[in-house]
Amino acid sequence: MDYLGRQLRLMQSMQQQRVSAMLVTHMPNIRYLCGFTGSAGVLAVFCGNNRRKPLLAFFTDGRYTIQAKEEVSGARIVIAKQAAMAGATEWLSRAAGQAMGIEADHMTIAQRAALSKAVAGKFRFKELSQVVERLRAIKELEEIHSIQAAVRLASGVFDAVVQDIRPGMPESGIAAEIEYMCRRLGAEGMSFDTLVAAGARSALPHGVASQNPVPANGFVILDFGVILAGYCSDMTRTVHMGRPDKNAVKMYEAVLESQLAGIDSVKPGVETSKVDSAARKILVKAGLGRYFTHSTGHGVGLEIHELPSLRKGSSPAQRKQKRTLGRSSVKSTVPDVLEPGMIITIEPGAYVPGCGGVRIEDMVLVTDTGCEVLTPTRKDLIVI
Amino acid sequence: MDYLGRQLRLMQSMQQQRVSAMLVTHMPNIRYLCGFTGSAGVLAVFCGNNRRKPLLAFFTDGRYTIQAKEEVSGARIVIAKQAAMAGATEWLSRAAGQAMGIEADHMTIAQRAALSKAVAGKFRFKELSQVVERLRAIKELEEIHSIQAAVRLASGVFDAVVQDIRPGMPESGIAAEIEYMCRRLGAEGMSFDTLVAAGARSALPHGVASQNPVPANGFVILDFGVILAGYCSDMTRTVHMGRPDKNAVKMYEAVLESQLAGIDSVKPGVETSKVDSAARKILVKAGLGRYFTHSTGHGVGLEIHELPSLRKGSSPAQRKQKRTLGRSSVKSTVPDVLEPGMIITIEPGAYVPGCGGVRIEDMVLVTDTGCEVLTPTRKDLIVI
Repeated sequence: MDYLGRQLRLMQSMQQQRVSAMLVTHMPNIRYLCGFTGSAGVLAVFCGNNRRKPLLAFFTDGRYTIQAKEEVSGARIVIAKQAAMAGATEWLSRAAGQAMGIEADHMTIAQRAALSKAVAGKFRFKELSQVVERLRAIKELEEIHSIQAAVRLASGVFDAVVQDIRPGMPESGIAAEIEYMCRRLGAEGMSFDTLVAAGARSALPHGVASQNPVPANGFVILDFGVILAGYCSDMTRTVHMGRPDKNAVKMYEAVLESQLAGIDSVKPGVETSKVDSAARKILVKAGLGRYFTHSTGHGVGLEIHELPSLRKGSSPAQRKQKRTLGRSSVKSTVPDVLEPGMIITIEPGAYVPGCGGVRIEDMVLVTDTGCEVLTPTRKDLIVI
Repeated sequence: MDYLGRQLRLMQSMQQQRVSAMLVTHMPNIRYLCGFTGSAGVLAVFCGNNRRKPLLAFFTDGRYTIQAKEEVSGARIVIAKQAAMAGATEWLSRAAGQAMGIEADHMTIAQRAALSKAVAGKFRFKELSQVVERLRAIKELEEIHSIQAAVRLASGVFDAVVQDIRPGMPESGIAAEIEYMCRRLGAEGMSFDTLVAAGARSALPHGVASQNPVPANGFVILDFGVILAGYCSDMTRTVHMGRPDKNAVKMYEAVLESQLAGIDSVKPGVETSKVDSAARKILVKAGLGRYFTHSTGHGVGLEIHELPSLRKGSSPAQRKQKRTLGRSSVKSTVPDVLEPGMIITIEPGAYVPGCGGVRIEDMVLVTDTGCEVLTPTRKDLIVI
């Protein structure tokens, strides 16, 4: 992974934000910038005094002495006797009197209060929003390969598990099979709680696998992802137990058409809300608009939900308000236009309470000219 | 679960903190107070106007319409058209002019900024720390039973998996077996990334299972837990591949003696730091003090790390400073004395870099007169 390149791009962003020092506290951002995969630490970044590249120091505790040495790239490692945050702030005292950036989306009010007390007026804080996240939205080639490998692993598991689904199996049993196979194939873990929602439960857009048995007739939504070399995958397929009736087929086909329309709209320069509306209008036309209760997709990378977010567009009035809000203390810098190298999900769904639901989700890479669907799994309705 | 009792105890705490309204935003706290198990929502609590019990409203989005109806107890459900936080704040406008509590340990700076803008001076915010967490530290009987069930499930899986460990197996293969068996026995998931650290990697106190093979000789640390009915378990055992040499046996025995000393010190009224020092002094005496690089334990419940924390005691000077900090805007109310109904881990360890490590961890219930070890698994050194 190109840690130096990332650190240099961060320096550019910091200069745009007019901060010469920054405390990175969100662990996936720390991993992105220096490679540390553990669960505790603070990364201090200094890029003042006309430096050509930033100076970084990573502060963690005694549990991670060996691991930090093995993993951290381009940053000095400090095993803090005191709290990591206090150590990092002290190290940054070379930037005293200047503006210190903090991650407003992740730092809690309590951490901020402790920090203010620790630095006692030596710094001016600047609350930054999504500075590292914006960098992370555009994937490097090596990241794309990692994500492709995760996607392929999960797709293979879907193909194998779907063969074994039988009426009467508990949803959690199917989840167990999926997770076991993913692990055996090398996954470090699942990227979120595996969703298996069968029969009427398929109308739950976020149906974590329960002990309920799969019925003899009805939809089963399978939504899962793996973590491989730190990178997440995310896929959903909906299968049908028993022969689907006309309404079920119609619903499935509408969701599939919606998903394909969403994918069709993906190319560089397109507003993310336009992708949402491309998918949404198909479901509205099919009379299912009010059953599509979530957004069309999201970025995926070191975290399962990353930038960009593919949501409903806001009205001109709301946009004006958003711009006003954007000028508040916390700068909003959400990318709302697709760029090459982004990896997103396209996952429309329709959920009819008491009846059932369908969701189809692929991962899609934004290329220079359009997009490439990364998920190889078939999308015609599988009947079991 | 006794949601009404919890809500009444929260009202008492709110009255002590002199707030008549509170926004609960931390999902495990929301689950504790009203039963909702989904991943998005805000709980608004109002207890002003001389009410005898608090008034609650739970705000979530369209993904959770059905689930909220099925799960939420003692709170009105509102499927918010706008953001849940904005809806909750508006609903609480009956408390305008009064103090509104927010969860400073969980609310981010960015959320706080958006909230301030939304309420535009109608409220005085009061940053609260660990108000619901303090209630959660003392388990109800039903919670104790849930945790016992989770502990027993995991212990059974340990007994089964330990039989199958062979040199050459990848750590991640062992983790896969553990997780699969847990799932098949009904676990909703693992309570944290399964740690399997073999050979020299056992010197990593937080060694997430890697692709590395288990060596023919050396320690293997297995640290894992399940989630059952929402409640977590946590256990660690260290086994030895091949015949252990004298030093390995000595190290194992020292850690075991330390763990037993820790357990021996657990009873109501004891300061949590005293439990840490009871365990720590055995390892110091054995010359392993500097290799025990973490704290002795933590509370367990809906989350894997809860109150209380069993850490090194602070010096009188530090304590004074802590008290001063405690009077800052964020009130510190960490319980540092054991009480009946607390469930904690006791998990000392020793980690010699380049060589190997040992950790032994049980879950322990604080009873009226002492404690009860919940983990039934044997603790003599298992040689494979």
